[in-house]
Amino acid sequence: MFESINIKSSVPVYVQIENLVQFAIASGRLKADHKLPSAQVLAEKIQVNPNTVAKAYRDLEVMGLVYTWHGMGVFVEKGAQGRCSQQCRKQIVGRLHEVVSEAKAAAMSAQEIKQICRASMASNASIYGDPPAAMLALVKKQKSSKKK
Amino acid sequence: MFESINIKSSVPVYVQIENLVQFAIASGRLKADHKLPSAQVLAEKIQVNPNTVAKAYRDLEVMGLVYTWHGMGVFVEKGAQGRCSQQCRKQIVGRLHEVVSEAKAAAMSAQEIKQICRASMASNASIYGDPPAAMLALVKKQKSSKKK
Repeated sequence: MFESINIKSSVPVYVQIENLVQFAIASGRLKADHKLPSAQVLAEKIQVNPNTVAKAYRDLEVMGLVYTWHGMGVFVEKGAQGRCSQQCRKQIVGRLHEVVSEAKAAAMSAQEIKQICRASMASNASIYGDPPAAMLALVKKQKSSKKK
Repeated sequence: MFESINIKSSVPVYVQIENLVQFAIASGRLKADHKLPSAQVLAEKIQVNPNTVAKAYRDLEVMGLVYTWHGMGVFVEKGAQGRCSQQCRKQIVGRLHEVVSEAKAAAMSAQEIKQICRASMASNASIYGDPPAAMLALVKKQKSSKKK
């Protein structure tokens, strides 16, 4: 689940952790009372400061999605899936709208946007990594096709 | 062009200004040597601190997209469109990939993602504002359709 964290992304690492936990809860991969890795263990695995992981866990606790059992660890809250799913979908709809509007403002066509989404749906590239080469090739292809 | 700036958005205002200028250059709406509104005038219009606008203009100058003619104002660089278009497309492909991957991780289907993109393409809602009600309705509709 945390293997797609990319410390070089423009998305802060603590936000990446928060998002990945939320998506895993929303999709049912992380169930109620499932234990998250300790901040120390996860921080070592992804090579960041333990405070970064601790901040993400604190934020998730404030959102009511996880709870801390002192001395035992951090666990997924009961009933988190319903709330999380609705919240994630709303956030994703908002972000999709933002990017599609940006694409429109930059004069990209509906056809191009559809093509990029299709390529992204089909790829297994990590969320916060660089887009796969096949997608970046679409940028260039569209540009040269304009010259015709 | 700057009417879609939203000071309540999670995207910082100076980034919104930078993006809007870039999209306008990329799409050919802002041509070489076109004068941008002064930082003072734009700041008053969108009700922000003039330093916010000045920061955006400085960043755009560092990117080589605009130049300052002291005492005269800020103008679009010659040849900016080509560079800007390529840069914008790359950035938008990256962000589309990120959001589509997030949607996949949150267990949204290809059908839903397509539907949301289509609704966004069809809407005239401001880029950085809330997504239109019709799109938010898709979030709920999908949720209730799951219960069937």
